[in-house]
Amino acid sequence: MQRVNRDRHLFGPGPSNAYPEATAALGLPLLGHLDPDFLTIMDQTCAMLREVWGTTNTRTLPISATGSAGMEAAFVNVVHPGDVVVVAVNGLFGQRMCDVASRCGAEVVAVEHDWGQPVDVERVVAAHPAPAVIAAVHAETSTGVVSDIAALGVAKGDALLLVDAVTSLGGIEVSADEWGVDIGYAGTQKCLGVAPGLAPFTINERAFGRRVEKPQSWYLDLGLLGGYVGGASGPGRTYHHTAPVAMVASLHAGLRRILDEGLEQVFARHEEAGRILQDGLEELGLELFAAKGHRLPELTTVKVPDDVDSAAVRRYLLERHGLEIGGGAGAYAATVWRIGLMGHNARPDAALLVLACLEDALAHVRG
Amino acid sequence: MQRVNRDRHLFGPGPSNAYPEATAALGLPLLGHLDPDFLTIMDQTCAMLREVWGTTNTRTLPISATGSAGMEAAFVNVVHPGDVVVVAVNGLFGQRMCDVASRCGAEVVAVEHDWGQPVDVERVVAAHPAPAVIAAVHAETSTGVVSDIAALGVAKGDALLLVDAVTSLGGIEVSADEWGVDIGYAGTQKCLGVAPGLAPFTINERAFGRRVEKPQSWYLDLGLLGGYVGGASGPGRTYHHTAPVAMVASLHAGLRRILDEGLEQVFARHEEAGRILQDGLEELGLELFAAKGHRLPELTTVKVPDDVDSAAVRRYLLERHGLEIGGGAGAYAATVWRIGLMGHNARPDAALLVLACLEDALAHVRG
Repeated sequence: MQRVNRDRHLFGPGPSNAYPEATAALGLPLLGHLDPDFLTIMDQTCAMLREVWGTTNTRTLPISATGSAGMEAAFVNVVHPGDVVVVAVNGLFGQRMCDVASRCGAEVVAVEHDWGQPVDVERVVAAHPAPAVIAAVHAETSTGVVSDIAALGVAKGDALLLVDAVTSLGGIEVSADEWGVDIGYAGTQKCLGVAPGLAPFTINERAFGRRVEKPQSWYLDLGLLGGYVGGASGPGRTYHHTAPVAMVASLHAGLRRILDEGLEQVFARHEEAGRILQDGLEELGLELFAAKGHRLPELTTVKVPDDVDSAAVRRYLLERHGLEIGGGAGAYAATVWRIGLMGHNARPDAALLVLACLEDALAHVRG
Repeated sequence: MQRVNRDRHLFGPGPSNAYPEATAALGLPLLGHLDPDFLTIMDQTCAMLREVWGTTNTRTLPISATGSAGMEAAFVNVVHPGDVVVVAVNGLFGQRMCDVASRCGAEVVAVEHDWGQPVDVERVVAAHPAPAVIAAVHAETSTGVVSDIAALGVAKGDALLLVDAVTSLGGIEVSADEWGVDIGYAGTQKCLGVAPGLAPFTINERAFGRRVEKPQSWYLDLGLLGGYVGGASGPGRTYHHTAPVAMVASLHAGLRRILDEGLEQVFARHEEAGRILQDGLEELGLELFAAKGHRLPELTTVKVPDDVDSAAVRRYLLERHGLEIGGGAGAYAATVWRIGLMGHNARPDAALLVLACLEDALAHVRG
């Protein structure tokens, strides 16, 4: 039962290696969840989340569960039974949105796209004359594709725009207010450079005003969570659940790290690392999967060469170099690799390391 | 925005100070959530959870959110719309069960008790002739009372027995299988001595066989989570959500610590610390709140003397001694204190420290 503490280069689709500041914060003395010092940390965390979300929304907070629970929180709070929800599906997480929305009693209109392509805004807004919600994934973790959320915001009409920013927040620009995002959620373990366990969440007044009065989820009920984080409901906190204090302290430290560096600089770092990786992969003779011009810098998808066993390469990388890359998602499980250079890993040296190790792995499996 | 790292004696109703092993594990290198090393940690965590739950249930796992989400997971997976759910309400968490069950469409039959009293098994089983579920809290965190779950198990008939063990698991005996518990959930931040963020969960075959095929919660759907932890669905894992790997590693270390010490010894330690505290409080002239003979050793409730301002005492303890105790819950917010000696804090020295500091605080506020 002894744990062997092997170090890992986490270059898959997440979790990524955390910023050192975020890891260190996990070991700080625990605080009570109602301790004045903790409430300050929570307030500052929400304030810093507003900066990375590009929003002034009062209701911006870390949901106390992983990114997938953020998705659920988004839908259960705004989807009323019978509501029409148009979902742009261009990967696994769009598919998941359909499942989650249907469990809220939505009439789901899925607008299917080929995987690897960005969301076609015209098709999405033409799919229904008056949807209650239009939902889309900003950065599809399953395909490495970025979609134009600002264009969806312009075209959404009266619908609420619900956006998955799990793999974009803290890595590329997210401007929720400017883009017209009404509800957004993310995860901590990708570009924010914090361990998985929290879902940064934001909802504006427009969406909150149309919310479900008593959502089917008590745990994710934003009406109750407003009192939990304070601010939204004025002074004084109401007990809702025990905050995951260590994870919140870690997110606080990770956000502080990012904002100290500066968002523009952080984005530039992701951009540069992704470019080095993607150029290098093509120089190795590999073919990228995501449509050109719509590739995420932080998450690169690459086709597995026909003469190579995907799993053998990944196993070799992990065992020989302690380096994790991801397989593909869904139908592409064995034919695509996903390589993330996110958060603390968004660095030129990390890009060069992946390229060198992958070259070695390909030579190894090809014998 | 600088964090001051003040140390705290966390002697409230939770979180408690974590076992040092659990804190240290938070700082270990992160692993990918599908890394073979992490899957081993997850398997071992589930195996150790079976030991502390007193169960052989295959489906025993840490839900990726706090204890309150464990409550929600319990209800959404077994309560079908229209089901009769009898809830024994003898404190805040029994009340919450009614709210959560009603959001699942249950016909809730609440059996109200005076706060501070244990569950009256005869009244609970007489409340309805054929409930689908009988729900009760083993250790009421709001009142410091323990109830006889084994007696409920004997009397439950065909109903499923759903039990909240948030404040009991790892501190006093929990024998889920022997007692006839069909579904149970807990938290990590009390007697298990780990930071808040996970909900140890167990469900037996009987309850799983009656489950809701497609629960309203995707995140907490046990049909999907079986593949996530493996075991239940045979070899091979299916991706559901990204496991909160740091918190799981911490729970793993906390459980290892507890089982190395031995459950019997851990329980004896909680018993002794609670006895020293409760005897000492009475020697200070204070009156305990929970009914005699039904007091939890790990969480003690005490009446605030009439001549003393509850908040002033708590503030003094925190500011002068870095020592946190809890206020009361619900109607007892200002008239009861809650003092937890849980997990790593279940020690005679901690009991003596609370007593000494409380005596000092009372002298201070009485001037």
